[in-house]
Amino acid sequence: MNFYEKLNAIWAKNNSFVCVGLDPDLNKLPACVKDKEFPIFEFNKAIIDATKDYVCAYKPQAAYYAGQDRDAELKMTIDYIKEVAPEVPVILDVKRGDIGSTADMYAKEAFIRYNADAVTVNPYMGFDTLKPFLDYADKGVIILCRTSNPNSGDLQNLVADGKMIYQHVALLAKDKWNYNNNIALVIGATYPEELKEVRTLCPELPFLVPGVGAQGGDVEKVVKNGTTAAGTGLIINSSRGIIYASKEDDFGVKAGEKTLELRDLINSFR
Amino acid sequence: MNFYEKLNAIWAKNNSFVCVGLDPDLNKLPACVKDKEFPIFEFNKAIIDATKDYVCAYKPQAAYYAGQDRDAELKMTIDYIKEVAPEVPVILDVKRGDIGSTADMYAKEAFIRYNADAVTVNPYMGFDTLKPFLDYADKGVIILCRTSNPNSGDLQNLVADGKMIYQHVALLAKDKWNYNNNIALVIGATYPEELKEVRTLCPELPFLVPGVGAQGGDVEKVVKNGTTAAGTGLIINSSRGIIYASKEDDFGVKAGEKTLELRDLINSFR
Repeated sequence: MNFYEKLNAIWAKNNSFVCVGLDPDLNKLPACVKDKEFPIFEFNKAIIDATKDYVCAYKPQAAYYAGQDRDAELKMTIDYIKEVAPEVPVILDVKRGDIGSTADMYAKEAFIRYNADAVTVNPYMGFDTLKPFLDYADKGVIILCRTSNPNSGDLQNLVADGKMIYQHVALLAKDKWNYNNNIALVIGATYPEELKEVRTLCPELPFLVPGVGAQGGDVEKVVKNGTTAAGTGLIINSSRGIIYASKEDDFGVKAGEKTLELRDLINSFR
Repeated sequence: MNFYEKLNAIWAKNNSFVCVGLDPDLNKLPACVKDKEFPIFEFNKAIIDATKDYVCAYKPQAAYYAGQDRDAELKMTIDYIKEVAPEVPVILDVKRGDIGSTADMYAKEAFIRYNADAVTVNPYMGFDTLKPFLDYADKGVIILCRTSNPNSGDLQNLVADGKMIYQHVALLAKDKWNYNNNIALVIGATYPEELKEVRTLCPELPFLVPGVGAQGGDVEKVVKNGTTAAGTGLIINSSRGIIYASKEDDFGVKAGEKTLELRDLINSFR
C-alpha cells in the first residue's frame, strides 16, 4: 500500500483523524519511567499501547531524539509501532531540505534507517531537493506549507504574483511535484482561514495539521475548513496535550483517554 | 570568542577562505579505511590532519552520518577537530527549522551534543524558529538565503514588494534577526550575480558559499563579488573535490594538496 492507501485504511479502521506526536522530553517524563534503561522508549511504548486504536498516525519529532542523544530509542519506538500496530503510519517529523546528493542521505535516514512511512520536508530550496524523497513512491512526503508558529508569516505570507508564498507551495505541490501521488501538506491549526484557502486550492491532498492543544488551534474550525469532499483528508496532531496528560503512573491510561476525547471531539464536527 | 571573532582569527592565521566539507559516503571511501572499525572517522581524521593549516572551517554534513547510522563518528570527528585544530570553527550543516520548543532541541543537538561552533538553518518558518539558535550568542547561525542547487529559484526567486524572497531573507537577517551579531548567510557559488547583490545588501555578514568544484561555481566571480570591504567575509566550501581527490592510500595527502590549490586559487583573486 502507498501512503494515501494507508491513510484511507486507518481513517476508516480507527475512525480517527488524531495523530499523536511522540516528542518525549527527558525532563518531563513521569518518575516511573525515568530510571529505566530506555526511559523514552518505555514512555512511548505505554502511550502507543493506550492509543493505537484511536489514532490515524504517530509522529515522532526527530529533534527530541537527536537533541537528547537518543536515536536508538527512536528506532526502538518505530520498530514497536510496526510490531503492535503496523496499520498505523509513522510520520518522521524532521523537516529536512538539502541539495540532491545530501537529500538522498536524508531519505535513507527516514525511510531505510528508521523505516518511517512518511517524512516532513521543507520546500525553501525547491523541487530538486524534494525529489529524492518523492521518488520513494510508497512513502509519504509532507511538505511545509503554512506552519503553526507565531512568525510563520515572515516569508510564508509575502505576496508574489498575487499569491502568498504558502499558496505557491500548495500549487507547486499539487500541480508539479505530486508525480508519485504521495504528497501531503503541513498547515497549522492556528491559521484556520489559511487552511480553508489551501483546501480550496488542493481539494484532495492530505493535510498534517499541528497546533491544536498546547498551541491553541480551534478543532471545530480545523475540521470544518480542512475536511475533503470525501469527508477525510486530515491528520490532526497533538503532542503535549496527550503525552503529558498525567505525570503519574497512569500517564498511559490518561493519554489514551485524551486521545479518545480528541478523536470524539473532532468527529462531532465531521 | 564569538563566531565572527573566530572567523576573523582563522582567516588571518591560515590566510584561507576554504571550508572543507566532510561528507563521507561509505561507498566511496578508499579501500585502506573501509575495513577499519570506524571507517568514516579514520577517513575524516586523515583529511583533517592534511588540511587543518589551509582551511578557515570544517563543515560536516549531518545527513551523511544520520543516513548511514554513523552519529558516533560525527561526534568523534568534531572532537578530533577540537583536539588538533581548536582554532578552526566547525559548521554543522543540518539546515534545521522547526517551532520553538523543537528548535530548542535541535540547538542542543548542534551546540551541546556535537559541540559545533555554527549551524545551518532554514528560514522558511520565520523568526521564532531561528531564535533558539540565535540565542546562543557565541555560536554562529548560518541562514539559507540563495542556495546553490538547480531549482533553488522555485521559491527563493519569487518577487514580493519588488524584492526576491532570498533578498527578503538577507534583509531580515541583517536588520531584524542579528541581535547577537552571530548570523551568516548561505549563498551558492553557482549564482554569482545574486552573491554580488546580497553583498551589496549586507556589506559585512559572512557568507558560506557552497557550489565550487563538483557543482561548477566560478571561483573568481565568487571572490570578486563576495568579498567584504575588509577583504574577507567568505567561507567557500568544497567537499567532493577535496575529500575524493584520490581513492588510494594517499587520499589524505591529495586532499591537502587540493585544499592548498583551492586556497591559492582563491587568494590569487583577492
